[in-house]
Amino acid sequence: MSDVESRPDLKAIQAAHERIRQFITRTPIITNDALDALTGAKLFFKCENLQKVGAFKFRGATNAVQSLTADEAARGVVTHSSGNHAAALSLAAKMRGIPAYIVMPRTAPQIKKDAVASFGGQMTFCEPTLEARDSAAAELQRKTGAAMIHPFDDYRVIAGQGTAALELLEDVPDLDVIITPVGGGGLLAGTAIAAKGIKPSIKVIGAEPSLADDAAESLRCGHIVAARPPTSAADGLLTSLGQKTFPILRDLVDQIAIAPDEQLIPTAAMVLSRARVLIEPSSAVVLAALLSGTLNLAGKRVGLILSGGNVDVGRLTQH
Amino acid sequence: MSDVESRPDLKAIQAAHERIRQFITRTPIITNDALDALTGAKLFFKCENLQKVGAFKFRGATNAVQSLTADEAARGVVTHSSGNHAAALSLAAKMRGIPAYIVMPRTAPQIKKDAVASFGGQMTFCEPTLEARDSAAAELQRKTGAAMIHPFDDYRVIAGQGTAALELLEDVPDLDVIITPVGGGGLLAGTAIAAKGIKPSIKVIGAEPSLADDAAESLRCGHIVAARPPTSAADGLLTSLGQKTFPILRDLVDQIAIAPDEQLIPTAAMVLSRARVLIEPSSAVVLAALLSGTLNLAGKRVGLILSGGNVDVGRLTQH
Repeated sequence: MSDVESRPDLKAIQAAHERIRQFITRTPIITNDALDALTGAKLFFKCENLQKVGAFKFRGATNAVQSLTADEAARGVVTHSSGNHAAALSLAAKMRGIPAYIVMPRTAPQIKKDAVASFGGQMTFCEPTLEARDSAAAELQRKTGAAMIHPFDDYRVIAGQGTAALELLEDVPDLDVIITPVGGGGLLAGTAIAAKGIKPSIKVIGAEPSLADDAAESLRCGHIVAARPPTSAADGLLTSLGQKTFPILRDLVDQIAIAPDEQLIPTAAMVLSRARVLIEPSSAVVLAALLSGTLNLAGKRVGLILSGGNVDVGRLTQH
Repeated sequence: MSDVESRPDLKAIQAAHERIRQFITRTPIITNDALDALTGAKLFFKCENLQKVGAFKFRGATNAVQSLTADEAARGVVTHSSGNHAAALSLAAKMRGIPAYIVMPRTAPQIKKDAVASFGGQMTFCEPTLEARDSAAAELQRKTGAAMIHPFDDYRVIAGQGTAALELLEDVPDLDVIITPVGGGGLLAGTAIAAKGIKPSIKVIGAEPSLADDAAESLRCGHIVAARPPTSAADGLLTSLGQKTFPILRDLVDQIAIAPDEQLIPTAAMVLSRARVLIEPSSAVVLAALLSGTLNLAGKRVGLILSGGNVDVGRLTQH
């Protein structure tokens, strides 16, 4: 069983992997000579954009849902999310045959609302503020008795997200660096625990957009700095770090790299035309950090987690 | 050594795989619940759109180039191609450090001309007829002494193309059916030899667009029927079958399925938005045959070779 109360270690992530293996897609790793040439590094892209629901979020959601006791599960699950976690929790709940209650901001992209609906999630809309989301979710929880599955500040979710790095290092053991996007910090925290647990010498780097650079500031200041008003193109990376993710990042992450916000959509478009996979702007942050030169990993073997692929293609062709 | 003169068998394809393994990408296989639901089948997509140069053609070209003796190789290679084979042969030649002379129709998509140029191929343009291509290529061959590597009617090329099915069946042994696009027949011939060699009970189906349905007619008539004037959206599937590919298809292929031409671009757009990989219209023919109902494989485990991903994304968003 995954422990709700204690910070996960490598063993917890390995246990999560055993628990979720039958439900998730083991996503492929792709390489691309053109992108290697542009960055000077040898890049290995872990394609979580090809995960079920199109995002790594399905790993954490599935681990949380499958960790519930039968009694807990029967009352369903509830969360608030800007999108991918909502779809992920909806499908994870559907696979266990239980209801998922989803609080979403009215401003979430239509493609993400459609996804939640298609997986049977029961949506409640709220204003796009953390306060409105929290109170709507708490209200739903009171009414239904459902278990709250936070999008990132939950140890079961963090352990689930770490399973992507576990697979990446199984397939490509000799990486020098792993880079993941950082929003609330669930993916980065899980990745850091898994990667440093397997290979202590590996560097773990978070990447975030210049218009949502609160993780870098939080680590610099030594406490959680609130996210700015949401203006970044990376709609999945707008949240602040959490009480559970922050200490893990503080202890294990080597660096936060900043990618210029205006390069996220062009980078996603380049990945589409050159590497032929569709990624959302939030995913592009890992490669944009390298292409913009804010991060130089020339000569290194670099794993990059492409976190999601839920984007209207038109957004990538109109820039 | 690959034999230029004799029809390849499973062993020849396995030998080709050993020969090219270090040069090619072992492409991933992806699955997608939404596309499974739409077709009623369990689909396994072999992503040759993620192959080097963005197409399976790199397998056959590399096998041919690597099969040349040092003396033959020194004089370079020559071919005519509507695009992907041209890029593939250019890169395969570059990897062996020899020149590639490429005859291309003036009408080839710019993206494919750019690819050939980027891999160092030396281009000669001709009118978009088989006669003009053949004579321009023969002229180049006379001048340079280069080895002709035909895009499909060459046993070394056929053996190389068969390696995609070899990998697919290694990764997913229990397939009931494999479907590939059919243009000149190199991929379908190599696939049929590999698949039937490994698993005689497997069905091998070719798919072609309704506006380029000469393979179906050829097999029905028992002789090669010339391709129609090129009007199909599937710019990679416009050629007639060849003297070497036709008898292999006649002997080993179970069926040719026809996909409605007008569904190729919408199907490629659907693969992009749902499965999040970029495929060219020629690749879409395998899935379009299923989605249109001209081919019903409900309940079957189906391998589909996504042959290439060289397309301007704008073509998929403007339909």
